[in-house]
Parts: sequence; C-alpha cells; structure tokens
Amino acid sequence: MLGRRSTLARHQYETDTETDPETEAMRCISCQEDYDARDAGTCKECYEEANETEEELKREIDDLKAKVAFLKFWSPIDPHHHGNRSHPPCFSDVVLVASEDGSGGPAVPVLAHKAILVSRSPVFRAMLENEMEESRSGTIKISDVSYDALRAFVNYLYTAEACLDEQMACELLVLAEKYQVKHLKAYCEKFLVSKLNWDNSVMNYAFAHQHNAKHMLDATLSMITDNMDKLTKRDEYMELVEKDPRLVVEIYEAYLSKQVNTAAHKDS
Amino acid sequence: MLGRRSTLARHQYETDTETDPETEAMRCISCQEDYDARDAGTCKECYEEANETEEELKREIDDLKAKVAFLKFWSPIDPHHHGNRSHPPCFSDVVLVASEDGSGGPAVPVLAHKAILVSRSPVFRAMLENEMEESRSGTIKISDVSYDALRAFVNYLYTAEACLDEQMACELLVLAEKYQVKHLKAYCEKFLVSKLNWDNSVMNYAFAHQHNAKHMLDATLSMITDNMDKLTKRDEYMELVEKDPRLVVEIYEAYLSKQVNTAAHKDS
Repeated sequence: MLGRRSTLARHQYETDTETDPETEAMRCISCQEDYDARDAGTCKECYEEANETEEELKREIDDLKAKVAFLKFWSPIDPHHHGNRSHPPCFSDVVLVASEDGSGGPAVPVLAHKAILVSRSPVFRAMLENEMEESRSGTIKISDVSYDALRAFVNYLYTAEACLDEQMACELLVLAEKYQVKHLKAYCEKFLVSKLNWDNSVMNYAFAHQHNAKHMLDATLSMITDNMDKLTKRDEYMELVEKDPRLVVEIYEAYLSKQVNTAAHKDS
Repeated sequence: MLGRRSTLARHQYETDTETDPETEAMRCISCQEDYDARDAGTCKECYEEANETEEELKREIDDLKAKVAFLKFWSPIDPHHHGNRSHPPCFSDVVLVASEDGSGGPAVPVLAHKAILVSRSPVFRAMLENEMEESRSGTIKISDVSYDALRAFVNYLYTAEACLDEQMACELLVLAEKYQVKHLKAYCEKFLVSKLNWDNSVMNYAFAHQHNAKHMLDATLSMITDNMDKLTKRDEYMELVEKDPRLVVEIYEAYLSKQVNTAAHKDS
C-alpha cells in the first residue's frame, strides 16, 4: 500500500496529470472538487454505505408519514371540513364548552367523542370513566380559555396538528398541562423556545415555572443567566421581585452554580 | 492547488511518513482505512454535511414516531388491554360480526366506534352515514371472514398495526379491498411480495388478480415470466388453464411484451 502510494506520488510529481487515473488526484464524488490529505473525508465504500443509509431513512420517513396520514383523525371542527358535504358524519357523544369565553355571547359548544378524549388525556379519562357529572350531561366545561384555543386544543387531539403563534402556544400549553396531553405540551414548549429572546425571557421564565414546562424553563434560565449584568435593570425583574421573589432566588441560584461549574471546568 | 499537491507528493516521496499530516496519506474518517485515488469518496466538508443530513433525518423519524404513538388509538380489542383495568372505557356505538365465523359457535361481536370506521373506510362511511340497516341496528355483518381476521382488521383501523403471516395477510388484503382501506391493502401486498417465491407465484398471481392487488400482480408476473420454461409443468398452471384461461393468456402476453422489450433494448 505504502510502496504503491509513494510510487504513485513520484509518478504524479513527474507528470502531474490531473486526468490520469493513476495519479493521486482525489476528487470528491459529491462536490466534484479536488481535495488533499488535510480535507480527506471518506473512501468510496463508506460514501456509498452512507448513501444507502440515507435512502433507507428517507423510505422510513415516507412510511411513517403515510401512517400518520392514516391514523390522523378527521376533526369534527377541522376548518377544512366546515360546511363541506364530504365531511363524514360526526357521531359526536360529548361537547366541550369554553366556560369563560371572552366573546361575551353564549359559549359555542365544540363537538367531540368520548372515545377520543379518553384515549388522549388521562384527565378526560378519569372524568368520563368515573361517571362524573360531565359524563352524564355529555358536556365538559373548560374554564379560563378562549373559544379559539379550545377549538385548536380539540383539533390537536384529533390530528396532532396546530397552527401556532406565541399567544396560541401559551394557551395550548396551559390546556396541555391541565389535561396532561404530553405530546401537545412538548410541541408548544418547542415552539416557544424557538421564539425565546432576551426581551421575553423573564416573562417566559415565570410562565414556564407556573406550568411546569421543564424544557422551556431550562432554556429561559440559561438565557437569563447569560445576561445577568442587564437583568436587574428590567421592569419584568422588578415585578418578579415584587410578585414572586422565590423565582428570582432560583435565578441567582442557577447563576451561582453556573459560575461554580465554569470555575471547576477551568481548573480541570 | 496543483502545485501544492505536487509539493506534498514530492515531500512524501522523500520522507514517506504515514503520520506526518503534510503527506498525501488519505485516511477515511469513517472506516479509518487508508485509500488511494481509485477509492476516493468525499472531501471532509461533504462528509460532514452528509452527517448533518443523517442526524436531521433521524430527528424527523423520532418526531414522526412520537406523532404515530400519540395518534394511535387504543383499540377496543387490543390483546394487550384484555382484562386490563387500565384499559379506558370503550364508549363503543357499533359492533362488527363475522357472519361466516368458522368457529361454529355463535359469532362473537367485535366492539368499535362509528366515528373511527367512517374515518378509515369510505365503505363503512356510506353504510353508516346513509342510515342503512347497519346504522340503525348498530351491527355490521362481515361475510366470509374468520373471527381472528375481523379482530385483526378492526385492530388495524385503530392502530395501523397487524401481526401478519401469509394466511392473515391474504384475509386482511381481501377485507382491505372490500372496505377500501388503502393503507392496510398496501401493507398486506408489501408483506406478501416479500414472501413471494417460485412455488407460490402462480397461486399468488391468481389471488392478486382477483383482488386488484396491482403491486403484487406485477411482482408475481415478473417472477413467472422469468421462469416460463418451468411453468407448464406445474399443477397450479394446469388448474389455472382449467379454471381461468384468461389469466393464463395474460401471462403469455406479459411474457411476449417482455421479449419484445428485451429485443428492442438489445438493438438500441
């Protein structure tokens, strides 16, 4: 191998032809650029293996997408189906009502199925399986939520889809926490963390704390502890000291342990 | 670039050190083997890009799996749930009965939900939305099917999962075709094609024909037309000539067009 390479090397040194397959000219199969030892990536075999793996992963994704499409329930309130004759009959056996609907007018009921609610939420399940008032009346009152958020919530239980902005993500996270719909809660946290910035960090920190959004809490805390110098000047900070000083203490504790870790890291 | 490579080449020719990073020693990042120009794969940059893509695809797969797990319905007949107190209440509003249950005894009804059946099958939908006898009685009779196959069928409508052997795959494919559950039909075809061999090819060809299993039909036809010399000696062939000569004609037509194509291919 070695002998062969040095021979090739000498050969190239003498002739320096790019095209001669016998030369050491390494051309990347992917980007078609020449590269030298410093930029060496993989051999052909590994490259081809990697390609196969990628193809397999893509096939698996297609299969999973088809499975999701099959399992996805048409939602009784799916906007695409509204007034659409191709909408299947509903056979709904329960309705949800936003009991503190901001709209002022009489609350509009949202149609649903007990079987779906119990399969998606342990809270609904306890409610409906234990023949509580909701089960008998076939009406579930949901307090402190807008009609739109309730619709989006029920729609998610049927389709695992929601169209989010920060306001909606917060409302849905509250509902997801209250009714223990883990998948929706994770979905909202992920969205809110993606929108996290220094301006909304303190507010989001308090929100995450209030609703046990662990992932969001960690993200907000690290954002805040990275900007401690600017923290005390903020109005939200003053408010938090007033309203819930324990949360402020936790910020300082997190900051302290961060400093300790950094120091320890430096020493080692 | 070129100049630089030849310098490196000369350098290596003189020193021939493997370890010296300045040499042309191309080591595959992935398998850690040395390789020469003939076996060149990708440069480092493309290798790293490919790695990132793979990570992204894997993340997408995890997200989709979580979505499937969320959307998957607990099935009213899920074996794992049988006699399991943690099984949610059923709220079933319809039952399916295997009207020609082989078991001899009285047919056992399979619990289900109208809302699920109509969302999975356009046939059930037409049946239940048009207030036909099934909708009023809340009982759907399924003919020519074993109780086990009916259970597996309903279970698939709730979970998109089935435990297949060739017998079950055939029974489920028939049901999937009859009730137009495309996803299940494709699933069974894929399984049966994976089990296809010369011995079962003629039988499967006739079966695929009978139930409009296009994918399976193509696979069986190409298996058969690749072994025409052995075909006429087979009992299944004789039977097919007796029972359904048109299907035999189609085999010969497929064989002929294959020959024509091959000839045309050779000419060009």
